[in-house]
Amino acid sequence: MANAMLDSTATTVISAQRLIALMTAMERYGGTPNGGMHRLTLSAEDGQARDHLSAWMHEHGLSVRIDGIGNMFGILDWAGPDAPTVMTGSHLDSQPRGGRFDGAYGVLAACEAVTAVRARVATEGVVPRCNFVVVNWTNEEGARFQPSLLGSSVYTGQMTLADALGRRDGEGISVADALQAIGYAGNAPPPIPQAYVELHVECGAELERADQHFGAIVRHWGAVKYRLAFLGRQAHTGPTPMAQRQDALLGAAHLVCALRALADRAPGTLHTSVGRLEVRPNSPNVVPGEAVAFIELRSPDAAVLAWADAEFAACVRAAETAAKVTSEIRFVDRRPAGPFDAALVALAEQEAAGLGYPMRRLDTIAGHDAVPMALRCPSVVLVVPSVGGICHHPAEFTKPEDIILGGDILARVLWRLCRDGLPGGTA
Amino acid sequence: MANAMLDSTATTVISAQRLIALMTAMERYGGTPNGGMHRLTLSAEDGQARDHLSAWMHEHGLSVRIDGIGNMFGILDWAGPDAPTVMTGSHLDSQPRGGRFDGAYGVLAACEAVTAVRARVATEGVVPRCNFVVVNWTNEEGARFQPSLLGSSVYTGQMTLADALGRRDGEGISVADALQAIGYAGNAPPPIPQAYVELHVECGAELERADQHFGAIVRHWGAVKYRLAFLGRQAHTGPTPMAQRQDALLGAAHLVCALRALADRAPGTLHTSVGRLEVRPNSPNVVPGEAVAFIELRSPDAAVLAWADAEFAACVRAAETAAKVTSEIRFVDRRPAGPFDAALVALAEQEAAGLGYPMRRLDTIAGHDAVPMALRCPSVVLVVPSVGGICHHPAEFTKPEDIILGGDILARVLWRLCRDGLPGGTA
Repeated sequence: MANAMLDSTATTVISAQRLIALMTAMERYGGTPNGGMHRLTLSAEDGQARDHLSAWMHEHGLSVRIDGIGNMFGILDWAGPDAPTVMTGSHLDSQPRGGRFDGAYGVLAACEAVTAVRARVATEGVVPRCNFVVVNWTNEEGARFQPSLLGSSVYTGQMTLADALGRRDGEGISVADALQAIGYAGNAPPPIPQAYVELHVECGAELERADQHFGAIVRHWGAVKYRLAFLGRQAHTGPTPMAQRQDALLGAAHLVCALRALADRAPGTLHTSVGRLEVRPNSPNVVPGEAVAFIELRSPDAAVLAWADAEFAACVRAAETAAKVTSEIRFVDRRPAGPFDAALVALAEQEAAGLGYPMRRLDTIAGHDAVPMALRCPSVVLVVPSVGGICHHPAEFTKPEDIILGGDILARVLWRLCRDGLPGGTA
Repeated sequence: MANAMLDSTATTVISAQRLIALMTAMERYGGTPNGGMHRLTLSAEDGQARDHLSAWMHEHGLSVRIDGIGNMFGILDWAGPDAPTVMTGSHLDSQPRGGRFDGAYGVLAACEAVTAVRARVATEGVVPRCNFVVVNWTNEEGARFQPSLLGSSVYTGQMTLADALGRRDGEGISVADALQAIGYAGNAPPPIPQAYVELHVECGAELERADQHFGAIVRHWGAVKYRLAFLGRQAHTGPTPMAQRQDALLGAAHLVCALRALADRAPGTLHTSVGRLEVRPNSPNVVPGEAVAFIELRSPDAAVLAWADAEFAACVRAAETAAKVTSEIRFVDRRPAGPFDAALVALAEQEAAGLGYPMRRLDTIAGHDAVPMALRCPSVVLVVPSVGGICHHPAEFTKPEDIILGGDILARVLWRLCRDGLPGGTA
């Protein structure tokens, strides 16, 4: 790929050195010895990463705003109040012992891309036709606090601020207290963009299998997420007769098995999972009285998702019967499948093609902050390959040349929006 | 029962008021608003409870020794170095959000029973023929640190001190550090008894169903306990194709279901359980890479236990295949079934009958510190009813009249040993 990048007609507009340096610097905050990343949202490490980003924004003349849920906005208000605003970025938080590219790449590539556009505006003497905002969303991952996409969901009105601030982690600490602890409990009115462009690593292996280096996500899968508690009766695992046991963990175990079997009935169009299970009191010689399962059903097809949701209810009933327990749904989040903005996809495709890289059109199954954003303004997610499709794991890796390619295409897209204004379809 | 207790020929030898007051005082340390008890071993609450017991022992002229694993011994060395020693007590630690009778009753009734015996020795002017030790064993419950019966197992040589001190809780704190933190890292040589008598609540409903108020445990079930880790591959729950997932929690779920089905193949003679499950990273949108199950198989019949153990291995293989994961055994503890001392059982039966209460002979399925003790000296566990058989639950309750009856029979048994010496069969 270096050939195209170094071609005189398509010189890299970003500085590869600066982008790699930014990423290396950010890895200091939560990077693990095995090359992974442990930067839970609103942790001390996240606070340090945010401080680093904030310092960068100030140094580069962006005005920094923090809203009520701690989303960080670095604003370049150079085109005047009547010009549209283009937002770009992603999230700095990671999964527990996750990877260092997921999220951070999108934020730092946005920093470098905006810098590159500013340099080009100066060099070519054009009048910018849009303002820019670099964003770092709070709690994209949903690992420490649920649900995921917390910051962008509050921003887009999918969730109330009060609800989000009251969410608690496994130790009972609220989002509000965690924001306060790291100094990111803001109250600034957030900027409102007319377009949103997010760069991310693929978290899948489709690009790699196709031997391609760049893609745009044209559609996101729908998802139904449940937090479901099985309620049994805490008792001694020794003397309590088997026939009298009401084992909450047994109920959850039946459901875990049934949900896997359910996915196998709709191969390729239904993903199911139980990623988190909280067992109480979780003592080796106590029959569990409560087991809380965090469940996901995902599909690109609304009909399949509705069918799976109905089957899920039947699986829960069967698990209750098998373990002589009851259950209650404590939280449900339904996110319909939907498209991203066709005009922004087309623009990215032109820019990639100009560099000699055909763009692949992809679905995303993972949630991205662009999913709630798409409800508010034309949005798109651009992706580069993740080696082996590995994501949410310390071995997550994207090759430097792909990191640079993605950052460069992002900068070219932003440059086009800056020079030409927003495309008609997305005005 | 008050009739027999108040009968002039069988006056209560203990002070009911003093025993109830001791139990009420001890409930301050970890008692929960719903009448339960949360006093994890070596916690701050356990430290306070130990301090309270230690102060009581000092006030009552017992010399206090703390051994290397933090077991507390209150010694009444009044019969001389050639006389045998009778040990009595239980444990002050509780399950997480457990009950207030399990364990604490045995320690405090021992305190009061020894006090009552001393008063009677003074009144009747007899020469005591044995010394007494009141004991509080460290970590009977096995909730915070595994395995259970930690203090008594070190004491009896079933486990090395170094191994026990190195055990860590869910937060990585070692037993050694926890002992240090509450000031119970001792190094005194422990006293060695020639008989061990433990009073406990039943943790079962057999006495209640038979409308009886007192029992002795004549046999303990055997147990095999495993800590088994399923090892999969951490991945994103969204995009990772179902066919590629190696879900450690799915493996554990298959095993939980299979172990329950296994118990149903040997009704009444096999108890199986998974009480604790540790899922890593335990994030809602990450396929679990590791799931550690804490498994118990219990039976009174060695052949059934051996059969269950072989079937367990087959269940693990099947779970591995179903979830495409591997597994490894991280800990195993095998405790054979065995009898308690017949002469001590007979002595308790005589004393109960003298009060008008027929004694019921019971098995215990729960572990008790008397199980390892039985390997070292004649031992017995005496029990009074637990309402509804409830144990390891805040609703655990023993009626005051049964509390007093049990304490009184314990005092009468100790009195007989004191006056008459140890029975021939247990010398």
